[in-house]
Amino acid sequence: MHSFMNIKKSAEISREFWDVTDRAGLFDIVVAGLGEGRHRAVADGREFVNMSSYSYLGLDTHPAIVRAAADAVLAEGALNTSTSRMRLRFGALRDAEDALSDLFDVEAVTVNSCAAAAWASLPLVASGIFTDGTPPLMVFDKNAHFCLNAMKPNVADEAEVTTVGHNDVEALEKLCRTHPQVAYVADGVYSTGGQAPVAELLRLQEKYGLFLFFDEAHGISTLGENGRGLVLETMGQINDRTLIITSLNKGFGASGGAVFLGPKGSRTRHDVALRNGGPLMWSQRINTAGLGAVLASVDLHRSAELGELQRRLQENIDLFDSLVDTEQRGDGLPIRFVGVGSEDATVRLAQRLLEHGFYASPIFFPIIGRGKAGLRLMFRANMSKGEIEDFGSLLKDLRDQDA
Amino acid sequence: MHSFMNIKKSAEISREFWDVTDRAGLFDIVVAGLGEGRHRAVADGREFVNMSSYSYLGLDTHPAIVRAAADAVLAEGALNTSTSRMRLRFGALRDAEDALSDLFDVEAVTVNSCAAAAWASLPLVASGIFTDGTPPLMVFDKNAHFCLNAMKPNVADEAEVTTVGHNDVEALEKLCRTHPQVAYVADGVYSTGGQAPVAELLRLQEKYGLFLFFDEAHGISTLGENGRGLVLETMGQINDRTLIITSLNKGFGASGGAVFLGPKGSRTRHDVALRNGGPLMWSQRINTAGLGAVLASVDLHRSAELGELQRRLQENIDLFDSLVDTEQRGDGLPIRFVGVGSEDATVRLAQRLLEHGFYASPIFFPIIGRGKAGLRLMFRANMSKGEIEDFGSLLKDLRDQDA
Repeated sequence: MHSFMNIKKSAEISREFWDVTDRAGLFDIVVAGLGEGRHRAVADGREFVNMSSYSYLGLDTHPAIVRAAADAVLAEGALNTSTSRMRLRFGALRDAEDALSDLFDVEAVTVNSCAAAAWASLPLVASGIFTDGTPPLMVFDKNAHFCLNAMKPNVADEAEVTTVGHNDVEALEKLCRTHPQVAYVADGVYSTGGQAPVAELLRLQEKYGLFLFFDEAHGISTLGENGRGLVLETMGQINDRTLIITSLNKGFGASGGAVFLGPKGSRTRHDVALRNGGPLMWSQRINTAGLGAVLASVDLHRSAELGELQRRLQENIDLFDSLVDTEQRGDGLPIRFVGVGSEDATVRLAQRLLEHGFYASPIFFPIIGRGKAGLRLMFRANMSKGEIEDFGSLLKDLRDQDA
Repeated sequence: MHSFMNIKKSAEISREFWDVTDRAGLFDIVVAGLGEGRHRAVADGREFVNMSSYSYLGLDTHPAIVRAAADAVLAEGALNTSTSRMRLRFGALRDAEDALSDLFDVEAVTVNSCAAAAWASLPLVASGIFTDGTPPLMVFDKNAHFCLNAMKPNVADEAEVTTVGHNDVEALEKLCRTHPQVAYVADGVYSTGGQAPVAELLRLQEKYGLFLFFDEAHGISTLGENGRGLVLETMGQINDRTLIITSLNKGFGASGGAVFLGPKGSRTRHDVALRNGGPLMWSQRINTAGLGAVLASVDLHRSAELGELQRRLQENIDLFDSLVDTEQRGDGLPIRFVGVGSEDATVRLAQRLLEHGFYASPIFFPIIGRGKAGLRLMFRANMSKGEIEDFGSLLKDLRDQDA
């Protein structure tokens, strides 16, 4: 018991931080969308810019995607087939999976969230079904996303589980030397900043046959040719020792999540996953609105607009980097962590920012360690230079005042 | 290892059954919806009636719900807020949760599927957070839905886990006598037929303080006043020793799932669940299309139409019961299992039925035991008497021919 989690203890530690956040008016703000990453709080009518939105390319309010979502519901006349997708699925679901497979040159299946993608695929990998029948030693990066960590007990029922330090390639290589099959579980782009050392991991894959499992929720769309993300951009093409899960609800601007099972046309993997992959078998799939959005977003990912949006995003990241120093400065990723330290000071800072028209999420335990609280900023293509400049100077002023 | 699951072994056993299903053209049929539970296969244009649709009241194609789904996307101009719901949520999400809480007189939170609801709430219950800080002995019914069973490893990391025979109240009472805190995990209405002995379980709750956890995915909407389901209809009102999860995508006709945490206004439970409930914290919520559908469906659940649809459903169940004998005959639930035995014969029967215009799902291991295969039928309010009569006599003829 408590080999992996201890909810009661974790709840006790984080309670005070959440209470402070709540009292500061930063918990559960009910909003109306104003487009372009701006919101209006329903309670007091205050308008603000969201500085912690993971819609990195601004696709969540893209008119073509929103319209396609509504149209798809009306065209099918239903949100779902009301029967398991293994039995009956709408043409829109087939089309969306085919389009994703073509776009990223992978064998893609979809589920209703990235967390469901983790649930569908991590136990499968652990079972050994993708590694010649031998359950691999399952090595988790210490900072792997919560939805991957939360699957550790399930994984441990199928294979041996261990955890290594963040991006500790040396420790991983040591394990590769002593175990016949090893699978490494990591984020491509980490939700709290930074990235996996993909090139080094590919070297271990080449040398030892290491199986790689990546969560690319924050990498897809944001980076790479046609928005294929950090991992595929580095690899060039997926291989049959790599599995990628992703959200379609973040940069991608639609709904749900996906599993890239391996090279396109891996019919065996496809069927094995559908027949044995937990939520793929029995859970709800993306509804027709989300599927319409996926299809419209795939079109956009194939257009010149995608590159233009990625370029604007990079300009905005660079502009912020020129104004505010963070550990992530210059890494080309859209996530910046502004460390503050004390949870109270972090919440106070977020509160002042909101008073001045900017929402920034205060994050703390269990997302990161105790006493290491700070603001998680996420940049978007559809922020104006003025917004970033105002935010940067405001952040500087408020921190100076508090120092 | 393999205390709960063995994916590789399970995949080996079920592979042949799935292959047979696939060869018979009964796996992954791509369809267009024709409304009223009818579909057209895209490949060959063949039209058929779905006899295994869990849209028990026919709400999946209800024009008001479909229209509301599309309208909600356009009204908000986005599918999601692109920030954790704990931080920012759309008015539509608040309204949908408030409306569900009012309708069923519970404290409701929503997630993007019933499986995510299980993931969000089962480990919480196991942690002891709802039972005065003492982790309860977690007793699973042997037939509890796959999405509950799949959570056993996570639950076992927080509490002791055991499994009792299906509806074995005596075994459960024995455990209540010898353990200070016990939680029982079961379906209200079982997806393979039958129901929980709710009145007897309430007696144990009264006597021993037993905590009850029900999956009401197939009970909500189908049964009870305002469609409150089997469990709430029997209880009259939820109490703080009962937690119910449900799908909003089956009988309810929308998208996603919900957790009924306890009596309405349980603010502490609400916050504890949001802050510590896995997918509630970080996974995607119901998109605006689904939320629009939830709100429209709540209105319908409050109207006279709901009772009328429930009445039609019961008439259709009764009509089928008068034509075909099953173990479930006369139980008033919409699920009937037509036992065949051999997997091959089951698939052959389903294939012949489809040739005659009726789709019925063949089910086998791991949904049920080996050599106990059969068809799972699900009845709807929007089936015509003619459809049921034709299906009943066809089923009889085909079974006689095969006998």
